[in-house]
Amino acid sequence: MNIIGLISFAVVGSFKALREGLDLFGITVLGIMTALGGGITRDLLVNHIPNALKSFTDFSFALFGVWLAVVFYRIFKRDISNRFFILIPDAIGLSAFTTTGALIAHDAGVSFFGIVILATLTGIGGGMISDILLGKIPNVLKDDFYASCAIIGAVGFYVTVSSGFGINTASVVCASLVLMIRIMAILYNWKLPRFS
Amino acid sequence: MNIIGLISFAVVGSFKALREGLDLFGITVLGIMTALGGGITRDLLVNHIPNALKSFTDFSFALFGVWLAVVFYRIFKRDISNRFFILIPDAIGLSAFTTTGALIAHDAGVSFFGIVILATLTGIGGGMISDILLGKIPNVLKDDFYASCAIIGAVGFYVTVSSGFGINTASVVCASLVLMIRIMAILYNWKLPRFS
Amino acid sequence: MNIIGLISFAVVGSFKALREGLDLFGITVLGIMTALGGGITRDLLVNHIPNALKSFTDFSFALFGVWLAVVFYRIFKRDISNRFFILIPDAIGLSAFTTTGALIAHDAGVSFFGIVILATLTGIGGGMISDILLGKIPNVLKDDFYASCAIIGAVGFYVTVSSGFGINTASVVCASLVLMIRIMAILYNWKLPRFS
Repeated sequence: MNIIGLISFAVVGSFKALREGLDLFGITVLGIMTALGGGITRDLLVNHIPNALKSFTDFSFALFGVWLAVVFYRIFKRDISNRFFILIPDAIGLSAFTTTGALIAHDAGVSFFGIVILATLTGIGGGMISDILLGKIPNVLKDDFYASCAIIGAVGFYVTVSSGFGINTASVVCASLVLMIRIMAILYNWKLPRFS
Repeated sequence: MNIIGLISFAVVGSFKALREGLDLFGITVLGIMTALGGGITRDLLVNHIPNALKSFTDFSFALFGVWLAVVFYRIFKRDISNRFFILIPDAIGLSAFTTTGALIAHDAGVSFFGIVILATLTGIGGGMISDILLGKIPNVLKDDFYASCAIIGAVGFYVTVSSGFGINTASVVCASLVLMIRIMAILYNWKLPRFS
Repeated sequence: MNIIGLISFAVVGSFKALREGLDLFGITVLGIMTALGGGITRDLLVNHIPNALKSFTDFSFALFGVWLAVVFYRIFKRDISNRFFILIPDAIGLSAFTTTGALIAHDAGVSFFGIVILATLTGIGGGMISDILLGKIPNVLKDDFYASCAIIGAVGFYVTVSSGFGINTASVVCASLVLMIRIMAILYNWKLPRFS
């Protein structure tokens, strides 16, 4: 699930860069940061050297996603980042990343809010960073029902652990909640309220 | 003073998000980051796990500020973030945050410049992050006499400590300087020079 | 070389701020962040308290660069950040910063990709941060042959170390590669491919 997430996040990020006309370095940075940025930020916050800098594989999967996006774009000249066959692996990635974030936050001994923030940030941080790099308001802040899925999953993780279950059970609860709610949000086009 | 700061910073940040038409998640993120972002960045720089992730109370006060702003906005349909009764608690927050930053920087054993940077960043970092999230040039960089109050307070802290006084005295000097100068800057509409 | 880099990066950053009409605080922040931001981000990622906060000299050189830019701008009313006599010291800075980044990354025991990221980030991070603070897409992501020089230098560093040479040799290889390639990129106006 993590690998699917890395690749699909990198594909989505690379397409963002392609849409904006960035050069090859920009496309690579956007793709990689979308895939790895959430985890890197989370590792910084819990005072670890980011795993993405130590592991060879995470980075390779992200680069593979960048390559996939560029090749696809050159052949078909078409942006597919909003299509169903990207949204589903993206939802799997959100689910995997949120769960990893909740586990690492739990190990770091942070508060309830700390777990929710770190889990959500692991899931959505990469996309936010790539939007900021493009000088845009991060899309998760204004639209869609995306971060909310991660928040609900993280709360589920916390409640399960607090109820005396092990972290394996809590991880399954978190991952399932995020994935199911995200897929429902896609199918039914859920939105959060705005006030203006 | 710290609690007043957390709440008023969160109110100001939430109003920024409301003005931009962000959704409920965006409003919450902007409010919380304005209140906690400066302290989180400072903790990262001195290699601590951010206190905001470990403490339950800071986050709760920030959420309360978000709630206040949303309720106020729904009832009165009016942005009050530039009114006097927000500017004063905001100045109290700037003063409290700058002082906390100076104390933590002093403990971390950084240089004179390090103390000034970390103290100022604790005071203004949250507002800068929320402006960046909205794709804007942080307001403190182009306008107003806001960061300068924090810098003067931090210099006051350093001079007091270097003169052989204790850190309690230095904290009082720092907090009073920031608060007094900020209030004078509001009353007399002070600005820094521009060159263009 | 490092000192030349700090001063010329600060000059370039201050001119960016002057062009946008920021006030004195904004100009100072942009200049300092352009000079020190890459190193600070790298230190965060390898879990050190940033050297720029502990050292007095780095900060002083950056401030000197800010002062130079402001004085020059006031006297000549002209932006010189794209002229040859700025581009060359800027290239020297890129070379010095990339090499420092590669050395620190090597000490931190990160992977091949980790070395390339940290070395490149040390070289280009400050400029990226200052572009983000101005609400712009970082220039290195869309234009020019700038980050690529740092990447090639970092790869040279890794290959030299992996071939059994010492880190001193590797540093010389890295610094020379970055400087030579960057100067050729300036002279021949190299660009990376775009796909749109």
